[in-house]
Amino acid sequence: MKIIALLTDFGLKDNYVGLMKGVILKINPQVNIVDITHGIGRHNIREAAFLLRASFPYFSPGTIFVAVVDPGVGSERRPIAIQTDNYYFLGPDNGVLSLAGKKDRIKAAVALENKKYFLENVSSTFHGRDIFASCAAHLARGVSFFSLGEQIERIGELEISPPQVKNDKIIGEIIYCDAFGNLITNITLQQLLAYAGEGGFIATLKGKTITRVYSFYAQADSEEPFFIEGSFGYLEISLNQRGAKEYFSLESGESPEITIERRPSRGGSIS
Amino acid sequence: MKIIALLTDFGLKDNYVGLMKGVILKINPQVNIVDITHGIGRHNIREAAFLLRASFPYFSPGTIFVAVVDPGVGSERRPIAIQTDNYYFLGPDNGVLSLAGKKDRIKAAVALENKKYFLENVSSTFHGRDIFASCAAHLARGVSFFSLGEQIERIGELEISPPQVKNDKIIGEIIYCDAFGNLITNITLQQLLAYAGEGGFIATLKGKTITRVYSFYAQADSEEPFFIEGSFGYLEISLNQRGAKEYFSLESGESPEITIERRPSRGGSIS
Amino acid sequence: MKIIALLTDFGLKDNYVGLMKGVILKINPQVNIVDITHGIGRHNIREAAFLLRASFPYFSPGTIFVAVVDPGVGSERRPIAIQTDNYYFLGPDNGVLSLAGKKDRIKAAVALENKKYFLENVSSTFHGRDIFASCAAHLARGVSFFSLGEQIERIGELEISPPQVKNDKIIGEIIYCDAFGNLITNITLQQLLAYAGEGGFIATLKGKTITRVYSFYAQADSEEPFFIEGSFGYLEISLNQRGAKEYFSLESGESPEITIERRPSRGGSIS
Repeated sequence: MKIIALLTDFGLKDNYVGLMKGVILKINPQVNIVDITHGIGRHNIREAAFLLRASFPYFSPGTIFVAVVDPGVGSERRPIAIQTDNYYFLGPDNGVLSLAGKKDRIKAAVALENKKYFLENVSSTFHGRDIFASCAAHLARGVSFFSLGEQIERIGELEISPPQVKNDKIIGEIIYCDAFGNLITNITLQQLLAYAGEGGFIATLKGKTITRVYSFYAQADSEEPFFIEGSFGYLEISLNQRGAKEYFSLESGESPEITIERRPSRGGSIS
Repeated sequence: MKIIALLTDFGLKDNYVGLMKGVILKINPQVNIVDITHGIGRHNIREAAFLLRASFPYFSPGTIFVAVVDPGVGSERRPIAIQTDNYYFLGPDNGVLSLAGKKDRIKAAVALENKKYFLENVSSTFHGRDIFASCAAHLARGVSFFSLGEQIERIGELEISPPQVKNDKIIGEIIYCDAFGNLITNITLQQLLAYAGEGGFIATLKGKTITRVYSFYAQADSEEPFFIEGSFGYLEISLNQRGAKEYFSLESGESPEITIERRPSRGGSIS
Repeated sequence: MKIIALLTDFGLKDNYVGLMKGVILKINPQVNIVDITHGIGRHNIREAAFLLRASFPYFSPGTIFVAVVDPGVGSERRPIAIQTDNYYFLGPDNGVLSLAGKKDRIKAAVALENKKYFLENVSSTFHGRDIFASCAAHLARGVSFFSLGEQIERIGELEISPPQVKNDKIIGEIIYCDAFGNLITNITLQQLLAYAGEGGFIATLKGKTITRVYSFYAQADSEEPFFIEGSFGYLEISLNQRGAKEYFSLESGESPEITIERRPSRGGSIS
């Protein structure tokens, strides 16, 4: 059975996700629907793009991803679909698909324009149901990718910058905060080790410091923030059984800078 | 595969929804279970009835809906099932099924009384698991509707009133507030246009006014509340990328009145 | 189709549960994945163990349960699997599987060590994805239980004590609080009736008293706390359409003692 995997900012209080599933199964009962998450921060396209890129490689080749974070729904922004080396992705053309598309290499992109594959009545507020779910279900039942609409040359892009080195410091960023309060950075363990070498480092985030890398949570006591190589493949800032988000007083949606310096070598003389 | 679609006020913190699914699949592994939502306001029968009516048409004919918002569980209120033109619905006889039943035309109703289709031990606090999930699974595996229990003539009803016109004003109501903070009214766009004509309108909700209808969210700036024809088929009150619930200081569960008047024609004389 | 049932403290904000599902279906598309809950209190192994024990009997024999509440992830604590009379359970060896294992009788246990059944890259923070989901999917596609790793003699244990009788009083405990605010105790209705007899009882929780047992919620008015035999098979403390958690000012994660005394017989003489 084809898999359709959903990622939205709809939350689970309303019937919106349920309606997308009803629509998909009405068009194509032979689909296995998987929720990646519906807990994306409201209208946070960047967060959705990041989580989609982090998630798709764990799914079977051929999976159809539907990513709907869509503050421009109903406006001129186009609904699109892209075909990559191994997958299909559907969503609004606001950058939400761009990080995944770049990682799995875009082979072709179309604007979703063929109304034959929309619901009969298309609202101007819920394309997740009326266009994206519907087109994904048709695609899953064998409709050809290119019949969904005209091919397009470019899609909307969005970037997550790699860390910068300025004045011999690494300047990175918090790109995601999970529900445990772990802070996912854009810095890899290799980058840190290559930079800091044997001498160690001092990282600064919102006026507080981090000086250690641990291999697993239980190595630390609960008062000490540390770096750990997390499951996204980046360094994360964590505390043991306690949220780093709270420790560093991060607001939801905040993406503060993190600065890493080499530790000054010991025994330097003053006199 | 038959679809069983669930709608409850159980939330997702506990194992309650998981147990319903375990029970269904133990009785009938050939079922596709879909969550409409479990985020109904606690004991809010009216909200459940409204969302069930808004949701069922998006599902395949033959779908079995289980709707459990059941403050009277264990009391004299009956567990029931209804058969409509295209679907089956199971739930407590407290009105939760009545709006959907009315919309898809009830063909027959039974009281769920045949203990053969209950779990062996029926608790007095969790009929969702012990009666509704169990009976739905048996129905899905081909048990005849009328073997579930005695036919009944009437089911409990509940109403969502249409807007009223009084003193040449439209008096409507907020019937649902979604997680984005959109306020769903009981007024349709057609009703508003037929009433206001070319001259425009002034709507009042909790002391604040709305004077515009937009076609999509991004037309507005974030400070201005507006009407939009929403995906439920009713006018919704929204702000662009901001919750109208917060803007109008609505409490959870509140259903305030909304009043619409014709805009006074310009150039009226005072002297 | 084999069922894999998931129980974690991951919540649904992140993509973590979605990734486990992606991994399972990539290895074995012929699996039906059911969420028991992902709302376990963070790092609350005891709560997870209790809910797992309360849930597994409602699932089909042969179901594979994956329970991940894992504050020690990446440390020396072993990932394990157990085979019981009717089921399989996978999780960290921290006691989370022990209550279910005891109830369904453990036939064999293995340490998950065979890297052939792990994901290629195993993180030190997310064994739910890299080890447990992966091994469960392989088990579901027919890999033999004993090929997952070396057999082990003992697994980590954890206990939920039965109520004690001291000075002729029953001393029980609140072991779980659900999202409705019902407080699940470790005392059964039979224990209470055998102790209190005809004369009635006075129970005390955090300075407030409970003196009645009701058969269903709607028997009570909303101001009066009462015992009810709940769907877990234990006495629960509830109020009608109101949370007992709030009434008794319980903090999240608190497990206060509850004391039950016999009601003093009437007409006792003082003079």
